[in-house]
Amino acid sequence: MRVDILTCLPKLLESPFAHSILKRAIDRNLLNLHIHDLRDYSLDKHKKVDDYAYGGAAGMVLAIPPIASCINQLKEKVAYQEIIYMAPDGELLTQQLANQLSMQENLLILCGHYKGVDERVRQHFVTRAISIGDYVLSGGELAAAVLVDAIVRLLPGVLSDETSALTDSFQDNLVAPPVYTRPYNFQGMCVPDILLSGNEKAIREWEYQTAIERTKQLRPELYNKFNTDVE
Amino acid sequence: MRVDILTCLPKLLESPFAHSILKRAIDRNLLNLHIHDLRDYSLDKHKKVDDYAYGGAAGMVLAIPPIASCINQLKEKVAYQEIIYMAPDGELLTQQLANQLSMQENLLILCGHYKGVDERVRQHFVTRAISIGDYVLSGGELAAAVLVDAIVRLLPGVLSDETSALTDSFQDNLVAPPVYTRPYNFQGMCVPDILLSGNEKAIREWEYQTAIERTKQLRPELYNKFNTDVE
Repeated sequence: MRVDILTCLPKLLESPFAHSILKRAIDRNLLNLHIHDLRDYSLDKHKKVDDYAYGGAAGMVLAIPPIASCINQLKEKVAYQEIIYMAPDGELLTQQLANQLSMQENLLILCGHYKGVDERVRQHFVTRAISIGDYVLSGGELAAAVLVDAIVRLLPGVLSDETSALTDSFQDNLVAPPVYTRPYNFQGMCVPDILLSGNEKAIREWEYQTAIERTKQLRPELYNKFNTDVE
Repeated sequence: MRVDILTCLPKLLESPFAHSILKRAIDRNLLNLHIHDLRDYSLDKHKKVDDYAYGGAAGMVLAIPPIASCINQLKEKVAYQEIIYMAPDGELLTQQLANQLSMQENLLILCGHYKGVDERVRQHFVTRAISIGDYVLSGGELAAAVLVDAIVRLLPGVLSDETSALTDSFQDNLVAPPVYTRPYNFQGMCVPDILLSGNEKAIREWEYQTAIERTKQLRPELYNKFNTDVE
């Protein structure tokens, strides 16, 4: 999968892609990542990419010309299935959306910063606005890293244990069951004995039941969705 | 505000805190950030912090001893209002929760990785599990960075324009109105004339109405919340 990220703060994205799963995906050529500095596309001699908002609203706005120039140049070489803008008012990212995007070949992700991008970019260049949640961040960079992480870990071969992603939270509208590891007894707090029973069928059933209980308790709206699907 | 982050991948968090708003908050002593490497608290000679899951589930689990040791040592020096665990099944982060956490003095954030932490850590050490959204990430590090960014930008003095955060999306259950900047005319796409009218009252009214329209269209469930609050 090829992912292009357009940002005015490319350095902010360095470490998330230099470690752990995302690094492994790049090393294994499963993720072909290109980070573009919007300033390289600025026509201004000071490499300016933002400007004051029309109408006097507070905060700076990313201007169209550098973004348009970068997107147009990339589109000449690459056929993108989606040009995504990370925005707090976008469609909420869910595991289902991550699954869906993980099946695409080429994604372009535009990070807003400051007060956002000029609205005309959204109207004419972006195919999809995505939000990672109902809160505001200083920029789209961390949101883009979150989106790429959620997608890339689903690509076959990225996680070392292929079964690992399938037992994640949300894949079946249930949160994951609790997990335990050694020591068995930590200052009097012990691991549930069923997990040491060796009875695989009973363990899977316990995991399923505790996942249901946990979903009911922690995320009732998700539980209702699960319940509807099962019926 | 003091924030301590416990992670087995401290390097992953380097660049998000070295740029932009989070760097500024650190430089201005508004954010006192401490990142702790869980491996430094491992009792194992190989600095191991994870182990296989009891019951044969796929994926590795972060073990209790290093986490307990780190948290206990920190708690001797600092009184934390919350010990937060970043988890996909936690309470969903919202702008309201970010507002609320921004008023605390000391927060400790534990990042899960691999398949998560031993359940006993959640039961006995964590006061609050928070999720940034209904999707799974490779670890809690990006989620922690997102949480800290959402909180820290609300601290007085962090954003250069103090009014900027107040006009953000979600502060009033509305998404932000569209923004525009120069050029006025970009390849035939023009800025709405009202924004150039100089009539401040009319502009604010236009912004309010377009924010309502946009919320209705993009985020109907948020619009219902707004509507209920206004009535």
